[in-house]
Amino acid sequence: MVRLGIIGTGRIGRVHMAGIAQGSQNAVVKTAADPFLDEKTAQWAKSIGVERTTTDYREILEDPEIDGVLICSSTDTHSRISLEAIKAGKHVFCEKPIDHDVQKIKEVIQALEGTKIKYQVGFNRRFDHNFEALHRAVVEKKIGRPEVIKITSRDPEPPGIDYVKVSGGMFLDMTIHDFDMVRYLAGCDATEIYVQSANLVDPQIKEAGDVDTAVIVLQMENGAIAVIDNSRRAVYGYDQRAEVFGSLGMAAVSNDSDSSLVISNSEGVTGEKPQFFFLERYMEAYKKEIKAFTDAIEKDTETPLGVYDGLKPVLMGLAAKRSLKEHRPVKVEEIMKEEGID
Amino acid sequence: MVRLGIIGTGRIGRVHMAGIAQGSQNAVVKTAADPFLDEKTAQWAKSIGVERTTTDYREILEDPEIDGVLICSSTDTHSRISLEAIKAGKHVFCEKPIDHDVQKIKEVIQALEGTKIKYQVGFNRRFDHNFEALHRAVVEKKIGRPEVIKITSRDPEPPGIDYVKVSGGMFLDMTIHDFDMVRYLAGCDATEIYVQSANLVDPQIKEAGDVDTAVIVLQMENGAIAVIDNSRRAVYGYDQRAEVFGSLGMAAVSNDSDSSLVISNSEGVTGEKPQFFFLERYMEAYKKEIKAFTDAIEKDTETPLGVYDGLKPVLMGLAAKRSLKEHRPVKVEEIMKEEGID
Amino acid sequence: MVRLGIIGTGRIGRVHMAGIAQGSQNAVVKTAADPFLDEKTAQWAKSIGVERTTTDYREILEDPEIDGVLICSSTDTHSRISLEAIKAGKHVFCEKPIDHDVQKIKEVIQALEGTKIKYQVGFNRRFDHNFEALHRAVVEKKIGRPEVIKITSRDPEPPGIDYVKVSGGMFLDMTIHDFDMVRYLAGCDATEIYVQSANLVDPQIKEAGDVDTAVIVLQMENGAIAVIDNSRRAVYGYDQRAEVFGSLGMAAVSNDSDSSLVISNSEGVTGEKPQFFFLERYMEAYKKEIKAFTDAIEKDTETPLGVYDGLKPVLMGLAAKRSLKEHRPVKVEEIMKEEGID
Amino acid sequence: MVRLGIIGTGRIGRVHMAGIAQGSQNAVVKTAADPFLDEKTAQWAKSIGVERTTTDYREILEDPEIDGVLICSSTDTHSRISLEAIKAGKHVFCEKPIDHDVQKIKEVIQALEGTKIKYQVGFNRRFDHNFEALHRAVVEKKIGRPEVIKITSRDPEPPGIDYVKVSGGMFLDMTIHDFDMVRYLAGCDATEIYVQSANLVDPQIKEAGDVDTAVIVLQMENGAIAVIDNSRRAVYGYDQRAEVFGSLGMAAVSNDSDSSLVISNSEGVTGEKPQFFFLERYMEAYKKEIKAFTDAIEKDTETPLGVYDGLKPVLMGLAAKRSLKEHRPVKVEEIMKEEGID
Repeated sequence: MVRLGIIGTGRIGRVHMAGIAQGSQNAVVKTAADPFLDEKTAQWAKSIGVERTTTDYREILEDPEIDGVLICSSTDTHSRISLEAIKAGKHVFCEKPIDHDVQKIKEVIQALEGTKIKYQVGFNRRFDHNFEALHRAVVEKKIGRPEVIKITSRDPEPPGIDYVKVSGGMFLDMTIHDFDMVRYLAGCDATEIYVQSANLVDPQIKEAGDVDTAVIVLQMENGAIAVIDNSRRAVYGYDQRAEVFGSLGMAAVSNDSDSSLVISNSEGVTGEKPQFFFLERYMEAYKKEIKAFTDAIEKDTETPLGVYDGLKPVLMGLAAKRSLKEHRPVKVEEIMKEEGID
Repeated sequence: MVRLGIIGTGRIGRVHMAGIAQGSQNAVVKTAADPFLDEKTAQWAKSIGVERTTTDYREILEDPEIDGVLICSSTDTHSRISLEAIKAGKHVFCEKPIDHDVQKIKEVIQALEGTKIKYQVGFNRRFDHNFEALHRAVVEKKIGRPEVIKITSRDPEPPGIDYVKVSGGMFLDMTIHDFDMVRYLAGCDATEIYVQSANLVDPQIKEAGDVDTAVIVLQMENGAIAVIDNSRRAVYGYDQRAEVFGSLGMAAVSNDSDSSLVISNSEGVTGEKPQFFFLERYMEAYKKEIKAFTDAIEKDTETPLGVYDGLKPVLMGLAAKRSLKEHRPVKVEEIMKEEGID
Repeated sequence: MVRLGIIGTGRIGRVHMAGIAQGSQNAVVKTAADPFLDEKTAQWAKSIGVERTTTDYREILEDPEIDGVLICSSTDTHSRISLEAIKAGKHVFCEKPIDHDVQKIKEVIQALEGTKIKYQVGFNRRFDHNFEALHRAVVEKKIGRPEVIKITSRDPEPPGIDYVKVSGGMFLDMTIHDFDMVRYLAGCDATEIYVQSANLVDPQIKEAGDVDTAVIVLQMENGAIAVIDNSRRAVYGYDQRAEVFGSLGMAAVSNDSDSSLVISNSEGVTGEKPQFFFLERYMEAYKKEIKAFTDAIEKDTETPLGVYDGLKPVLMGLAAKRSLKEHRPVKVEEIMKEEGID
Repeated sequence: MVRLGIIGTGRIGRVHMAGIAQGSQNAVVKTAADPFLDEKTAQWAKSIGVERTTTDYREILEDPEIDGVLICSSTDTHSRISLEAIKAGKHVFCEKPIDHDVQKIKEVIQALEGTKIKYQVGFNRRFDHNFEALHRAVVEKKIGRPEVIKITSRDPEPPGIDYVKVSGGMFLDMTIHDFDMVRYLAGCDATEIYVQSANLVDPQIKEAGDVDTAVIVLQMENGAIAVIDNSRRAVYGYDQRAEVFGSLGMAAVSNDSDSSLVISNSEGVTGEKPQFFFLERYMEAYKKEIKAFTDAIEKDTETPLGVYDGLKPVLMGLAAKRSLKEHRPVKVEEIMKEEGID
């Protein structure tokens, strides 16, 4: 039995707590910590089997009974708490992104060197049943050599403007998932990124210095071309599709709906919308990523998404930001050199 | 917190145990009983949080801490244990069918009279997300007045011949779920049943006196005509679809697959098969039916599927058996009169 | 070049005229005849290349230049004009049904004996791209041995009540197409028919002694069970689907729409309705059946749908009518014996 | 009745001849001309009703009975024959592209000035039932303001290498259709184009100085971003899809297949491939574009695709070629200025 501590009891922290409570056979949450922990959350946590709650996450790091921590706090604390947890000898599951600052990710990489600590980054979509099936089709060469990879990723509604301001921009906040997905599906890294973006959804986002609509083209190491299209607002729900076209065919996955109900009437033939947002679409994926983390601890194997998998999408996000700013294709290597990554 | 005992730790008993362990917020399994309980099952039960295991189900009935029982034993014991559990003052969730013998169901009905005991029958499909959505569309008059109801229900492979022999025949074993579904979708009872059946799957089934393929036509009280088609073997998986056609349109639900993956290649455009069988397709439905049962206990409300919902499909199954034997449409009333039901 | 005469310039006569004008490489319409031919139709016929128009169909029968006739007049004249055309040595394409009276069909059969005259019946659906593909899948054993055949056939709106009165009843007027389709898909005849029917669409239809909704179960010679469901009114359009389930899988075809457009919005994901009615859905099939007829003439081969293919669905319709009247399964042989068919 | 001459009896010339013979109510082909006209083609033309055939297209231009010409000769002759036809007072339907050289298109524009000659360019896809439905959905504001437009356009197999060498490159030969489609769907012009391309299909194409795979990003005047993905080889057939995402939803169209047949077996659930290539997919569109041309002549209205609609995609193709060469986003205005277009 793997004993976990959860740091941060906001939405994603509670998702993991509930997921472990309901679905996990080999893990329990011993302690949940949050500086702003309220009574309601504390009671709820206990009702689903969490042993302790605290406002001080250091209790978790200092608890010898705890094997691993889930860092679900705000992004700006991810790298710092990662370092502390590594120092305390805890295995680490860190929500994405590790940091927006590459230098801080490098510190985490250095801290991990020579340790036996498992480190996993929270790119949950790799654990979605559809994307897993698509990845498997590619790996099993069902479509030959990948040539064009297409990802559609649209949120149902934009985040609050306060969040947008601290989000690091759409590319580091939202597209970062798609950058990870491109790497997962292509089986290699991107070498160059070009961004065409727009402000079409909410003028406040523009005022905050961010964009809300984008098409991003990526040159992949294996010769394939990838393209991501993003929007912060799809009125029909969370649109999460992908397609890999290759020398022997095409593999594609579409959205999940709450049911397969189709109504035919005088207006047309109408099926359900895609599930509303990530909590609906990816609930099972959240459980599975934690299961992968605790399995890696239990069986002493590699986590499926290590610290470098956390670094790469950040480098891609920085290249995308520069492409947006300078309106030209930007090589990822350009960012890497500046950041001293090789 | 509702405390449950599970009687019978075969496949379906374990399904419910695991479901409650993983998903339920308001129930725990205190005790699991099975006369043939083996060590492996006992250990597994404990590992998922079941407090006690025993070979004697009477321990459950006598335990004052236990609120309700799940009767998951073999069909021939359902009505007897129901009676004992009612006598012991336990709420009862009984796997389908209550009994093949209408008189024994009548005894259960009589035993329940005047008590406050909740009784629920395990027609799990009503809790499937697709059938729930279809039912809701009908109830909300999305398609007007129902006129033709079509149910396709095919198993991926026939049960073992030993099971066939004690199953009560396909209509009481397999079609009984579809009889319940017809009632659920039509919102009323069937008045007459006609069966056209065949032995096309396995000659052993014929030797055992049963059929393996059938089309069943039902006249419904509300004027709609229903038709069920059954097969004991669909090589592409568990085929569970339904369609309700009405004065304002048609509502239909199809199968679930493990993913939405579609591969286009020189052979065609290929999606995944339906999920293999009932454990895959209805796992969530099993959790939801138990949740409905424990909610009814906790909130002192009616269960969604009472003892009469257990009786009616048996009457329909008996009418179907007579139609098969006498090759004519049989009124359900004919069976009811003979059984003294009004 | 095959030279044709068209007898009857009502809707279906004009469909064939237009089809031949637009699509046929090996046929021309020399003459079109109709006792009630109006000026407008005559001009239109000429504008699309018909050489002559007349109110007397005997001109066609007497014209030595004309190879074959298309009998598109009212049903009650089909058998009589067939006999005259055969006597005149013309090849005959006869719209369905040849007659409602089996004895009159027998006269046509007898008249054909010993002649080299090609006779084809207008069951156009066999030439629909979807049903052709389904039939091919069955013939090529893609699904093994057929076990359950399902046909859904619903009109978008009922015919006028005056038409209903002379139609011979839904089974001989509408279901007769489905009876042909069952034979086409099963590759054999039906031996027994059971009807469950209702009046749910229009009380006038009931007053006219007919039904508007039905489920029809058929036992096929090859052991398969077939089921047809009919309605005279599907508000979402002409619903023409079929499914053949067999030992190695299932083959199914669905409706055609005017386009593949799908709109996703806050209401759902909506595609187009099926095409409105038979003229939209089967226009290409009408062209192809005439092409098959003229090819048979030109190459001196068998027509794909001979006079017996015209007889059999009428026998099935009569069995269905008796099943409706006597509320019991009726063997087709029972009708055949009474009619002196063996 | 509009009398037409067809110049060029290669594949597309014969497609139009056959289309007019079969489907057109208001046009006939009087003369077909081709310098390399062979006996077989001449006979075939006559068999479908073409009055004359000749090796000298000037016979068509000089024939006072002919109202309009269809220029279906090789691309390098389009602009020259257009000029001659305009001078001869004939209405002109010109296959795409008018020319690869913008100056030559300008000459055609100048020649048309002040005349009443109808000029139509052969962007047939606008007449496809799916793209028409998509365009209508956008125009009718079903999805609000367009924000992201996506076009997938993949050929089933690359053209012969000799053709590639004279094709003007993939952007002017193949993508030019997609450039037109983007304009059609967006309802405005592109202002900037960025190309990411690759040679993944056939090394000979690279040797010929062309690419075979590309993702092309376009900034549209109305603020929308468009993206086209092209491949010269999709093993599953001709892949022609489009999607318009907007403020109120998404509209999408997919491929057509020969039938709706779906086979479910132990391998999966398999539907038909998209139709093989443009002759299958766009046959009806070819008929409809000629109908639009002859209607414009007959009713003296504007053609739906004038000479400027022929110019714009060429400008876009030239911008794409420059983007490929210089690896940067290229403003269409840059090309326009150089070419003296305003």
